[in-house]
Amino acid sequence: MIKVGVYGATGYTGIELVKILLGHPEAELAFLTTEPFIKGQNFSDVSPGAAELPLCSTGQADAEAVDAIFTCLPHTISMELIKRVYRPGLKVIDLSADFRFASPEDYKQWYGVEHLAPELLSKSAYGLPEFFREEIAACEIVANPGCYPTCAILALGPLAEEGLAKDSELIIDAKSGVSGAGRKASLNTHYVEVNGNLAPYKMGRAHSHVGEMELILSQLAGRELKVAFTPQLAPFSRGILETIYVRTQISAEQIRELYSRRYAHEPFVKVLDRGKPAQLAYVQYNNDCVIGVHDLDASQLVLISSAVDNLLKGAAGQAVQNFNIVFGLDETAGLTTVSGRI
Amino acid sequence: MIKVGVYGATGYTGIELVKILLGHPEAELAFLTTEPFIKGQNFSDVSPGAAELPLCSTGQADAEAVDAIFTCLPHTISMELIKRVYRPGLKVIDLSADFRFASPEDYKQWYGVEHLAPELLSKSAYGLPEFFREEIAACEIVANPGCYPTCAILALGPLAEEGLAKDSELIIDAKSGVSGAGRKASLNTHYVEVNGNLAPYKMGRAHSHVGEMELILSQLAGRELKVAFTPQLAPFSRGILETIYVRTQISAEQIRELYSRRYAHEPFVKVLDRGKPAQLAYVQYNNDCVIGVHDLDASQLVLISSAVDNLLKGAAGQAVQNFNIVFGLDETAGLTTVSGRI
Amino acid sequence: MIKVGVYGATGYTGIELVKILLGHPEAELAFLTTEPFIKGQNFSDVSPGAAELPLCSTGQADAEAVDAIFTCLPHTISMELIKRVYRPGLKVIDLSADFRFASPEDYKQWYGVEHLAPELLSKSAYGLPEFFREEIAACEIVANPGCYPTCAILALGPLAEEGLAKDSELIIDAKSGVSGAGRKASLNTHYVEVNGNLAPYKMGRAHSHVGEMELILSQLAGRELKVAFTPQLAPFSRGILETIYVRTQISAEQIRELYSRRYAHEPFVKVLDRGKPAQLAYVQYNNDCVIGVHDLDASQLVLISSAVDNLLKGAAGQAVQNFNIVFGLDETAGLTTVSGRI
Amino acid sequence: MIKVGVYGATGYTGIELVKILLGHPEAELAFLTTEPFIKGQNFSDVSPGAAELPLCSTGQADAEAVDAIFTCLPHTISMELIKRVYRPGLKVIDLSADFRFASPEDYKQWYGVEHLAPELLSKSAYGLPEFFREEIAACEIVANPGCYPTCAILALGPLAEEGLAKDSELIIDAKSGVSGAGRKASLNTHYVEVNGNLAPYKMGRAHSHVGEMELILSQLAGRELKVAFTPQLAPFSRGILETIYVRTQISAEQIRELYSRRYAHEPFVKVLDRGKPAQLAYVQYNNDCVIGVHDLDASQLVLISSAVDNLLKGAAGQAVQNFNIVFGLDETAGLTTVSGRI
Repeated sequence: MIKVGVYGATGYTGIELVKILLGHPEAELAFLTTEPFIKGQNFSDVSPGAAELPLCSTGQADAEAVDAIFTCLPHTISMELIKRVYRPGLKVIDLSADFRFASPEDYKQWYGVEHLAPELLSKSAYGLPEFFREEIAACEIVANPGCYPTCAILALGPLAEEGLAKDSELIIDAKSGVSGAGRKASLNTHYVEVNGNLAPYKMGRAHSHVGEMELILSQLAGRELKVAFTPQLAPFSRGILETIYVRTQISAEQIRELYSRRYAHEPFVKVLDRGKPAQLAYVQYNNDCVIGVHDLDASQLVLISSAVDNLLKGAAGQAVQNFNIVFGLDETAGLTTVSGRI
Repeated sequence: MIKVGVYGATGYTGIELVKILLGHPEAELAFLTTEPFIKGQNFSDVSPGAAELPLCSTGQADAEAVDAIFTCLPHTISMELIKRVYRPGLKVIDLSADFRFASPEDYKQWYGVEHLAPELLSKSAYGLPEFFREEIAACEIVANPGCYPTCAILALGPLAEEGLAKDSELIIDAKSGVSGAGRKASLNTHYVEVNGNLAPYKMGRAHSHVGEMELILSQLAGRELKVAFTPQLAPFSRGILETIYVRTQISAEQIRELYSRRYAHEPFVKVLDRGKPAQLAYVQYNNDCVIGVHDLDASQLVLISSAVDNLLKGAAGQAVQNFNIVFGLDETAGLTTVSGRI
Repeated sequence: MIKVGVYGATGYTGIELVKILLGHPEAELAFLTTEPFIKGQNFSDVSPGAAELPLCSTGQADAEAVDAIFTCLPHTISMELIKRVYRPGLKVIDLSADFRFASPEDYKQWYGVEHLAPELLSKSAYGLPEFFREEIAACEIVANPGCYPTCAILALGPLAEEGLAKDSELIIDAKSGVSGAGRKASLNTHYVEVNGNLAPYKMGRAHSHVGEMELILSQLAGRELKVAFTPQLAPFSRGILETIYVRTQISAEQIRELYSRRYAHEPFVKVLDRGKPAQLAYVQYNNDCVIGVHDLDASQLVLISSAVDNLLKGAAGQAVQNFNIVFGLDETAGLTTVSGRI
Repeated sequence: MIKVGVYGATGYTGIELVKILLGHPEAELAFLTTEPFIKGQNFSDVSPGAAELPLCSTGQADAEAVDAIFTCLPHTISMELIKRVYRPGLKVIDLSADFRFASPEDYKQWYGVEHLAPELLSKSAYGLPEFFREEIAACEIVANPGCYPTCAILALGPLAEEGLAKDSELIIDAKSGVSGAGRKASLNTHYVEVNGNLAPYKMGRAHSHVGEMELILSQLAGRELKVAFTPQLAPFSRGILETIYVRTQISAEQIRELYSRRYAHEPFVKVLDRGKPAQLAYVQYNNDCVIGVHDLDASQLVLISSAVDNLLKGAAGQAVQNFNIVFGLDETAGLTTVSGRI
């Protein structure tokens, strides 16, 4: 069994990750941290009905005693921790944004702070298996992608690779469930504020995920691609649906064929039949990304619809997929593609 | 026009109250307070789409310049304020719990703190118009009832008055929407925690509304009545449904007839036809309380179902009803019994 | 008082309309129809808590005895009825799609059936007061706009009038609450299917509202404009949010200024301050359309966000606004711009 | 592998059952039926994202070729089918109500129709493993319990067995999610009708589950116990919460100890710590029943709170638990107690 520790086990992503690891055939949970830690706290206190697992503070966790760590910490706090516990041989799956940019300058541009461990950036890989599987297998630190970028890059990546986006600006209209906003109490996530509402926020270039999407898509395309991004907070607990508008030289049908070939052997990406759009019901509670492609009319505008569960393929599920790759396990170990909610 | 000030205008109850007063034919808003006040804050900042009304701090409000004040403040803070601004001739509608108990001892028992203005208690009346209309008209301070007690006392009051509850213990199974928990950010009211969940809390005698219900019902009955109370937080924004179990000597049909007579001239209480239970759809967005009465079987157990909108008949709507009584206006001025949501 | 009859009073739009008319200072309800009518049926059977108003069948309604009729019937059934009861002097507010196209050919193209009363088309006007107020005042049949088009045309109309949309294709990403799908039972609107889900449908040119939007926007622009439309069914009861992408020669700030001037005297259109996007909370339960305008980046792509309550400004509220215009009343009579939900 | 067929695979219970069986280590799906069957229909058409499994009509299914069948059919249709395909050796798990009553008279009383296969009743057992494990192991037809009764009997069974319910009437206030109402389109389950609402229905003795609860509880108690039942339709997709009021000679603490002992070795029943009430979050998406016990006050009234996922422990999960017992497998095979939703 592979001994793993989870830093930040009591946010929504951490909770989801622990649940997956509890059912993982090769992973053994060594510690779960939370801050602030209150003596006697237990994982079942934050996840009703879950197993009685003890929690501990960051300081109490022994990173020396494990084979891998998952960090579900806020950005900046995550790189501080990783810098401190890093040692050759330790595998790190970082669910924060801290290692998603290859250059510390890009990081500073999008997150507004200096990178604290630039010397570790070369040891990291961007953890989107469908595009960087080899890099992930070879790295020490997996930078698990953001939820919005996972959904967008899977939807646009093959088009970028083939150089088929006609102009360089891609419109991404994204709707996210509330778990994406984290488990911290705030008026923004108050039930009464969210229930029945739908509200755009950080439109344009204000969301730091724009940087991540542009960086990776440009890298895949070999030229600069720009993104127009409209995130919206929507009244459901989990899931992201992105409706993406792109001008291309090829038809929706050709794009679907391209995508079907590109993802034919991917266990967690499904290209939908003609006419079927992505919807959240396909992906909630499983690790899939589903993608639909649609002609809008005679013009060159195509609609790509893409959906993931923000806590699974958009976070904890993908982290376990990366863990499986890093340790040479079956990539689907512990993960499900079957269910979906009703 | 009657000049009114609202203390605590930016909680859910305060917001609802201001909206009603804006449409009230006889009320003129003089000030709206919020704490902490941030310079330049406006009512439309907390109630998107509402009018551009300036907010101020408690200290900036001039209680001398108004005919009436509404206090939508937390308990204890409310009586402190009322003690400070009280003057003969000023009419006070207090939406907190601070003046709901005639005796300071009862207040201390249920709220755990000393009453700060016991000398004002004799100037107050319990603001449930259907049972205390004359006292309200004559008082200086209206103690607007709690949301759960409004729903329960209207459902049980006529039975209590007639001495028809067979044993002294009444079971009140209550389900409340999340606005009842207030507008403060907390994990308990986080969308993801509430959505799809249903959770009892403070069962038995732990909720301070138990004291209020027992006090008033016992007063109406002329003997001590006890309440077994199970409040539950439910996934909707507004509304309370109580299913109440009581043993009586008379049938559900006789109770319905009693209630129909008792409430025949009440503008905001509706006794439903035989077989129809109360449901939230009847009362959301209006000032009604609806009551259904049902035989459970051949035994002497009867089910009374009762519903109110916790923000209207359970708080701000009833406050305006009391305001109308205090100033001798049409009791329904500014209030609606028509709509209900779809 | 103006005597009015409502055909189709028991769908969501009809229910909402009846509630408004009950509170309207100049309207008197003469009849409410429903099909199939069951003897003894009452309006309160479909709208819990509403007044006890008798319903009748279409055949029992006496259109001769009223000054105006509202038709909340399915398309085709509506024009059949209007053709039958039409008489000079009778004012008709038709909430169906049957009179929204000036030409019977356009109607056939988008609705797939022959128009049954082409001779009445010249007596009708498109009922969007902000653009066709005079035509509405002068017509006999008001074609009340569709919900999606109301939201889109208010958001794009001034730009179209000024000829400022750079290319002819406008991207409209629209999210609608479930009441927009009507009150008929269907698996698509089953709570379990909708709850927590978000699902595009009829993407591209498949939705008949595309025709209506293109027709009116092209008319305003004086040249052909095309729409790329992605309607999505979202988990809330009421409201439409559209995020609209358009390329223009002028900046978002200039557009906001243009819109602020254009709508300065409109009682039901609000242009939001810089940086504020439209959200549903602004418009639920009131007759407003709110519009935000946002730069997306240095390119010429602008985001316009627009929201209406699909049952009010998107249907019944706008119908009453039109009724007020037709009868020369205050345009806001019976309507509210104040409230919004919490 | 055990070959199984599922009759009625496209209702909510059937869908959930198929998903479990797809992940079951010992079960192999031989056929899935639906009525009306449309040629070419596939399981993924009703369960987005699920596997591409062909559906067939009842007539096309070959019950001869399987070791076990699950019937998720409406009552009466289920016994017709079972009567037709019954053969010694075939194991039947019936999720309908048709075999839940040992006597055809009781069945007729509660379901209003004659039993069509009274000769098979003696071959059946009531499928609540915690009380009838041996009977289930030995029977040919398992009558899988109703959702409300599962939740209630687990909550009251040990008390009944010990003869500790003081009077014979038990008050069960039950709140159910909408999937419990089935997947058939109806106005009652329309999103707009349910969203934000809470509505009692079939109060008292009108719900046929009352008969099932009384029958089994009386059997466990060895004397007649009566139930006062108030089912309520609540705005969530899955889960049942019952708050149960009972008078006993022993304290809540003694009851909790009794229950803890009684269920100590049960994999799917959890007795909560003192002070913790059952809530839906504990049981959604897992096969658990959780039970809390609470003193209400000095009197002899005790509150028992109990929750299950109506589709799992209340239906499909329990069906698989019974399947495991019937075939001598690990009782938890294919089932989870870990997860719960966030």
